[in-house]
Amino acid sequence: MFQKVLIANRGEIALRILRACKELGIQTVAVHSTADANAMHVRLADESVCIGPPSAKDSYLNIPSIMAAIEITGADAVHPGYGFLSENARFAKILTEHKVTFIGPSSHHIDIMGDKITAKKTAVELGIPVVPGSPGAVETEAEAKRMAKEIGYPVLIKATAGGGGRGMKLANSEDDVLTAWSTARSEAAAAFGNGSVYMEKYLGKPRHIEVQILGDGQGNAVHLGVRDCSLQRRNQKVWEEAGGPTIKPQERDEIGEICAVAMRKLKYSGAGTIEFLYEDGEFYFIEMNTRLQVEHPVTERITGIDIVYEQIRVASGEKLSITQDKVQFNGHAIEVRINAEDPQTFAPSPGTITFYHPAGGVGIRVDSAVYQGYKIPPYYDSLIGKLIVYGRTRDECLQRLRRAIDEFVIDGIKTTLPLFQRLIKEPDILSGNYDIHWLEKYLAENKV
Amino acid sequence: MFQKVLIANRGEIALRILRACKELGIQTVAVHSTADANAMHVRLADESVCIGPPSAKDSYLNIPSIMAAIEITGADAVHPGYGFLSENARFAKILTEHKVTFIGPSSHHIDIMGDKITAKKTAVELGIPVVPGSPGAVETEAEAKRMAKEIGYPVLIKATAGGGGRGMKLANSEDDVLTAWSTARSEAAAAFGNGSVYMEKYLGKPRHIEVQILGDGQGNAVHLGVRDCSLQRRNQKVWEEAGGPTIKPQERDEIGEICAVAMRKLKYSGAGTIEFLYEDGEFYFIEMNTRLQVEHPVTERITGIDIVYEQIRVASGEKLSITQDKVQFNGHAIEVRINAEDPQTFAPSPGTITFYHPAGGVGIRVDSAVYQGYKIPPYYDSLIGKLIVYGRTRDECLQRLRRAIDEFVIDGIKTTLPLFQRLIKEPDILSGNYDIHWLEKYLAENKV
Repeated sequence: MFQKVLIANRGEIALRILRACKELGIQTVAVHSTADANAMHVRLADESVCIGPPSAKDSYLNIPSIMAAIEITGADAVHPGYGFLSENARFAKILTEHKVTFIGPSSHHIDIMGDKITAKKTAVELGIPVVPGSPGAVETEAEAKRMAKEIGYPVLIKATAGGGGRGMKLANSEDDVLTAWSTARSEAAAAFGNGSVYMEKYLGKPRHIEVQILGDGQGNAVHLGVRDCSLQRRNQKVWEEAGGPTIKPQERDEIGEICAVAMRKLKYSGAGTIEFLYEDGEFYFIEMNTRLQVEHPVTERITGIDIVYEQIRVASGEKLSITQDKVQFNGHAIEVRINAEDPQTFAPSPGTITFYHPAGGVGIRVDSAVYQGYKIPPYYDSLIGKLIVYGRTRDECLQRLRRAIDEFVIDGIKTTLPLFQRLIKEPDILSGNYDIHWLEKYLAENKV
Repeated sequence: MFQKVLIANRGEIALRILRACKELGIQTVAVHSTADANAMHVRLADESVCIGPPSAKDSYLNIPSIMAAIEITGADAVHPGYGFLSENARFAKILTEHKVTFIGPSSHHIDIMGDKITAKKTAVELGIPVVPGSPGAVETEAEAKRMAKEIGYPVLIKATAGGGGRGMKLANSEDDVLTAWSTARSEAAAAFGNGSVYMEKYLGKPRHIEVQILGDGQGNAVHLGVRDCSLQRRNQKVWEEAGGPTIKPQERDEIGEICAVAMRKLKYSGAGTIEFLYEDGEFYFIEMNTRLQVEHPVTERITGIDIVYEQIRVASGEKLSITQDKVQFNGHAIEVRINAEDPQTFAPSPGTITFYHPAGGVGIRVDSAVYQGYKIPPYYDSLIGKLIVYGRTRDECLQRLRRAIDEFVIDGIKTTLPLFQRLIKEPDILSGNYDIHWLEKYLAENKV
């Protein structure tokens, strides 16, 4: 096992990792920018090293600075958390070259999964379902009709050179596929000087469902079920559920097993998340994140498994401590992300926390790195805490979440807690009837 | 379901109950003494009523005052928490007469279980194992020998009129039983003017094991497994485990089923705890608590069942929401009681909390009613918070507990947190090798 782990991150995730290290009896090194000298991860670490000025580019993303901190402290492993250098294959490679363990997958796996086109190709090879589409450009009327029939309506025709919705047309049936195809081609030609278009299955109301996986790099891998992260604003998740309100246990086990088998084939090491769109009982691969995810606690709550322990253990060469038949799912968990933001405009709201009192009691977990008197710096992501709530059922989880949100006090700055107070009264949220577009629509239609 | 519940208590348990009510959509009424006007349960309740001066006798134990608060607020049920009026059969009866529901068992059940002699008789009738002993006084040498053999050595010979250890003698084998018997008789005669003695099985290193039960008063009852509460100081529990380090699942299920069957026979309603001494694989009834117990959260953690929900639901006339086959046990949980006390002398340490930062993160539950700036009044029990920690295994639970204790900050007063920092390094604690005498001995031998 490692003697000393350097945590190349900040905020709640740095504290999350620090806690796991302490529990496993491993010494911890915090790194921090000058703006984070008073941060909680710095206060609680065994050692800390300042790695640069506030700008992330010069500190948390500054590989030479971090390498120097490793050199100074003698850390034998680095946990990158999420964001920053967590999916930087070059960083992983440099660490390996310096005989320091990167707590995460191999740089090769980061590489093949980091690029979206390569990732989709890898997914197909591994038997992971992807959005059906034309193999290349659709050049003729006959091909358009045949391909659309093969894919199944509705289909989306998109400019190969496109972006921003131009040269994109929806065809709901064979009646309009040719019109859509020719309009898309004309628009594409006009907009991009290239009329080439391709075709994909159109998902109207997809949910975002993701599979948590763990591998040990020795060919063992398990899935820890799914999370529903459909409630998003500008592609940022704001509310995540484990279980997933509309995914049946059988569907969960099927897609989970597909992912676990794929990871066994890859000999993947560490934690990873395979993200899907889900509609009408079908899963369609979006991307894979080769790191710990913000929303990992909901999975921990319903499985009892500490994902960071497993990351650290497999990185140190141990086998996975769990086999698939030992993974049990109990109850439901929801996480809401508490951001230091205006709950209406979503403008960042850094500043000093004048009173802090986290929710407590049964079924409540709080992951945060703030404290009363702490001054949130304006330089980084606005996530300041996560409230994770458990219930035997989704309804029990929701009633507890409502209570916990009401009870949580963060004064001195604005936070997104009031947004959750509103959301938890919405019938669609209570019934679990939402897709990835729901929140954006709700926010547009319900200005306060 | 109830419209409005009055919580006839204070501190963390008042908040615990208030949270459950809020989650179930029930209005809450807090009652408080003049010393508790700023208490958290008062701040978070929908309504509050001052019921008297600081002295508990004049406030939290003042039945007429509480009845007036019910009258004023129109509460249709009362939750008594633990302590105070929670096992007061007269209070339960008065409420019933006023058509207000007492959230707890019937006054009859409180009565028969409240008195220790009646309780033991009831236990025997219900098939609950008790400490074997002579049915009455042991009058002759022959009877002493026969009875000791029947009970099994070692046996304790005790003065019928006795107390304080006088007239009490231990016999380890047939060789010394007659000497012990005659010495005990002489001592008893000298001390109490009555030489009558009786005999009981002697337990040298018992553990305190208790069974959590729930009944609905309609003949349904379940057990939620056992808790090991052997770590005690002056008969006050300080550290409780669910699971119980040395109780095997089969033993747990057997004693649990005996208790559940007994509660079905009684048609017991609400939560209750049947306490045992445990030695060499045998359970011996001590007493029954006909109320919610301080340490109930450890059971909630490993079963996922909210005991306060169940109390409220069955009191409102609903059936138990769970059957025995649905009760599952997952992992291990430990609770430590954070008291506002000097961790060496155990002298109370009331005062103002100048900084408060509860532990957080994976596996941590904090039940507390204090906040930064809160002034702990000197009039009541010194319990100010409970730290409950979960792990898949006992070892995992312990390593997390160690981290959580280190992380918990309560400044301005003294607390028992440093005691737990010491205890968690003790080999006997780590191995689970302790009985009900362990902590007293440890404290006597390890003065800091």
